[in-house]
Amino acid sequence: MNILFIGDIVGKPGRVALEQHIHQLKEQHRADLTIVNGENAAHGKGLTKKFYHQFLELGADIITLGNHAWDKKEIFDFIDDAEKLVRPANYPKGTPGIGMQFVNVNQITVAVINLQGRTFMNPLDDPFQVIDYLIKNAKKKTDIIFVDFHAETTSEKQAMGWYLDGKVTAVVGTHTHIQTSDERILSNGTGYITDVGMTGAYDSILGMEKDSIIRKFKTGLPVKFEIPETERTVLSGITVSVDDKTGKTKSIKRILINPDHINFE
Amino acid sequence: MNILFIGDIVGKPGRVALEQHIHQLKEQHRADLTIVNGENAAHGKGLTKKFYHQFLELGADIITLGNHAWDKKEIFDFIDDAEKLVRPANYPKGTPGIGMQFVNVNQITVAVINLQGRTFMNPLDDPFQVIDYLIKNAKKKTDIIFVDFHAETTSEKQAMGWYLDGKVTAVVGTHTHIQTSDERILSNGTGYITDVGMTGAYDSILGMEKDSIIRKFKTGLPVKFEIPETERTVLSGITVSVDDKTGKTKSIKRILINPDHINFE
Amino acid sequence: MNILFIGDIVGKPGRVALEQHIHQLKEQHRADLTIVNGENAAHGKGLTKKFYHQFLELGADIITLGNHAWDKKEIFDFIDDAEKLVRPANYPKGTPGIGMQFVNVNQITVAVINLQGRTFMNPLDDPFQVIDYLIKNAKKKTDIIFVDFHAETTSEKQAMGWYLDGKVTAVVGTHTHIQTSDERILSNGTGYITDVGMTGAYDSILGMEKDSIIRKFKTGLPVKFEIPETERTVLSGITVSVDDKTGKTKSIKRILINPDHINFE
Amino acid sequence: MNILFIGDIVGKPGRVALEQHIHQLKEQHRADLTIVNGENAAHGKGLTKKFYHQFLELGADIITLGNHAWDKKEIFDFIDDAEKLVRPANYPKGTPGIGMQFVNVNQITVAVINLQGRTFMNPLDDPFQVIDYLIKNAKKKTDIIFVDFHAETTSEKQAMGWYLDGKVTAVVGTHTHIQTSDERILSNGTGYITDVGMTGAYDSILGMEKDSIIRKFKTGLPVKFEIPETERTVLSGITVSVDDKTGKTKSIKRILINPDHINFE
Ligand SMILES: [Fe+2]
Ligand SMILES: [Fe+2]
Ligand SMILES: [Fe+2]
Ligand SMILES: [Fe+2]
Ligand SMILES: [Fe+2]
Ligand SMILES: [Fe+2]
Ligand SMILES: [Fe+2]
Ligand SMILES: [Fe+2]
Repeated sequence: MNILFIGDIVGKPGRVALEQHIHQLKEQHRADLTIVNGENAAHGKGLTKKFYHQFLELGADIITLGNHAWDKKEIFDFIDDAEKLVRPANYPKGTPGIGMQFVNVNQITVAVINLQGRTFMNPLDDPFQVIDYLIKNAKKKTDIIFVDFHAETTSEKQAMGWYLDGKVTAVVGTHTHIQTSDERILSNGTGYITDVGMTGAYDSILGMEKDSIIRKFKTGLPVKFEIPETERTVLSGITVSVDDKTGKTKSIKRILINPDHINFE
Repeated sequence: MNILFIGDIVGKPGRVALEQHIHQLKEQHRADLTIVNGENAAHGKGLTKKFYHQFLELGADIITLGNHAWDKKEIFDFIDDAEKLVRPANYPKGTPGIGMQFVNVNQITVAVINLQGRTFMNPLDDPFQVIDYLIKNAKKKTDIIFVDFHAETTSEKQAMGWYLDGKVTAVVGTHTHIQTSDERILSNGTGYITDVGMTGAYDSILGMEKDSIIRKFKTGLPVKFEIPETERTVLSGITVSVDDKTGKTKSIKRILINPDHINFE
Repeated sequence: MNILFIGDIVGKPGRVALEQHIHQLKEQHRADLTIVNGENAAHGKGLTKKFYHQFLELGADIITLGNHAWDKKEIFDFIDDAEKLVRPANYPKGTPGIGMQFVNVNQITVAVINLQGRTFMNPLDDPFQVIDYLIKNAKKKTDIIFVDFHAETTSEKQAMGWYLDGKVTAVVGTHTHIQTSDERILSNGTGYITDVGMTGAYDSILGMEKDSIIRKFKTGLPVKFEIPETERTVLSGITVSVDDKTGKTKSIKRILINPDHINFE
Repeated sequence: MNILFIGDIVGKPGRVALEQHIHQLKEQHRADLTIVNGENAAHGKGLTKKFYHQFLELGADIITLGNHAWDKKEIFDFIDDAEKLVRPANYPKGTPGIGMQFVNVNQITVAVINLQGRTFMNPLDDPFQVIDYLIKNAKKKTDIIFVDFHAETTSEKQAMGWYLDGKVTAVVGTHTHIQTSDERILSNGTGYITDVGMTGAYDSILGMEKDSIIRKFKTGLPVKFEIPETERTVLSGITVSVDDKTGKTKSIKRILINPDHINFE
């Protein structure tokens, strides 16, 4: 089967870009399963119920999250009923929501896991311990396990990739909002990319209005971050072709659509 | 003119990969100026006099550094006499070495600057203030200014890129050791990439032996990092084509050579 | 002369404790100059014009700040006209407000400096470079120089203390909100304490309602911090007796008033 | 019973100060149980077998550790056989050594726990989750539970103190090496101090030679930290008087012996 993953949707430009491209991308890559990271969907911070449902209606099958999962308070009202939503699995026991969802794709079960790093991020439960436990459970049902590892540093992400090599189908990084060019199949068949990149305003800093962020760096003073109004957008994604029998990755391919890289096959 | 930049050389596999590819790369991209980041040349930590000279003999014109500049003590013995060596410019006044070097390329002067970020790194002088000052000085001699911005976060790097858009020829990021796929020309003509990536062992974590780094993440205990012995290497670079009259970037192109991406035009 | 310094006033309990004790403290310690850190005066975050004036009316001569200086937006409206207000001096050039104020005490000029650390805090200009510059200027007018060093780590604070030993009258730390017991006169006559501590709710975490902060640590989820309503308060201060001729500290004494430590001479 | 706790012994001056004062302190405070933090005993970094045994011979009953536990490699050779040694309990499963030791004091069992914080420190298992588990186990044997919480920030330490209030006998902080003056009995009977402080060279920065640390802050360059050779030392401790029936703290008292504070009752 083919899995299409689209990186962090940031605010309105991100939502517009998703709507603009998702149908064609699903067709072009013959996606059997489409996963979208939605942690920045609502004005750059968090996910509302409205956008969660909008993404499903647009054709996403599963929405993943990250450290911004909790920025919009209403998440606590709907996360426990949201059967297509996955939050980082290594928040402590008792956290609302769930860190692994099973989804049926043409009679085949796929486990989708969201996990968060700790280096230069807030302390959470150890993602390496937690993923061991989740894989053990997932393996009872399926060999196709897809991991969105939401982390800051390249070292923690590469470490997780190699640690899971041969144990899961793919490990794709999110959170830095810049796509890396290191997509590959690791030695034991796991697909890997350090960061998928974000989907949002192209002439921006991580999807946010750039002047305010530059001012923040230059002054050290508090600054309000805004989403730019623009039609110049970037969509970042990855598509993984999976051997359904072994759960291994047969090919992995970056997707990058922006005014400098027009999408074509 | 064409500028070829090759990302952080990490230990022996990095030095071997450099030697293997530099001549062909210079020819293929008709490089007039070749810059190599050498902060991890000596067993992954720092630069020795031997390797500094070796890189020049191999065809590098300028060597840049980063936070690891000082890891090998002997740097203090030769940095002040090394006319082709640039260390991060925003170390405080009195630091050995120099943060900007001028180099003559076919009768044209080029300023090469090394600068270090502060987010999730050690405190240094403000790179935004320092670069303003350096550009002011460089502009007296040339409009071709090339900046190696050695920083951890995508936000600080993008902020620097946009801040310098139109003021310098190119801003290329280093330090995370993973190449990003976001090379572009910004609105006012500055070439930009968030990270060039590293040059070293391919089946590694940032160029280092992967099992020890995984163990570090899993145990929290001190671990000795080693460079793997391997012939499977990656070389990461970027090539920038410059309009000699305006100092603006005409084109920017990523270079990535590894067992999965064979180099060809 | 005697200088009385009272540590970070946190919200209403802090303001109440200040009002309750300031007159007696000034009398008891025969204070010629009274300095109050006000960075947390307004509901724990920032300082309003109202509370700035209130503190002056209560008997403070100078108000110092810290990293929370900018939390209440109205600070930008009055900081440039506030002649008794000092913000951290090592914010970059162009920052509103001033980092050193001179005040006349019985015909004697005193320089009061506010400075901010960088370790585990936001990047700012180097406090060691900035203080050198400020001392050079201050020395033209006076040898009595009082420094509120607002910093997180004990190492940066002790380093600043020893660095300034013999160059300034006293270095008193703020920011951690917990008083240390290491007040002393350093080898060359500078009074020093790592942290003066805060003034606010006693049964609290750093002056804030404790259950929400515990919840933050246990869940990793966003939490709204509140100031407790309570009459059980702590006031933390330090008093420095200065040799007016040399500007050196003759004695330094901690002040701690809370339900467990009743104030008495 | 009375418990005497002595803060981080730093290098030779720390070991000398311990030897000089421990007997008198045990007598003076009628200590039934003496605990010493030894994470910096060996030249400031780690603990050797030799010093572990030396501290026991000098009269310590239990040695606690911290983030520096692993700095001397030989710790791995003896930690598993060291019955009087406690390392931070929230290192991941499989870590050598143990995080809680039971000790018999005049027929009464006492649990001694070492725990490490996470804010501005390396990621570890959640200390709040781990302590819940340990207390549950300890309570099967005893109500007298003594916790050395080795952490950086005042907020995490106060949060732990209030979280454990009424559940353990005492929570004493270590790691910042500067004694705080906030020792108290919390509302439900738990003794608390944010940091006990260190035992070592008095004219130093956290027990280390001060010029090199100042140079580190001023230059940003690597610096070798040394232990000063000096007879001017500080010893920092705390003594807790426990109600043996309830396990609650009846009184808590700081100990600070240095050239400015001579020890006397
Ligand atoms: Fe994101
Ligand atoms: Fe994120
Ligand atoms: Fe590097
Ligand atoms: Fe680096
Ligand atoms: Fe404060
Ligand atoms: Fe503060
Ligand atoms: Fe220590
Ligand atoms: Fe420590």
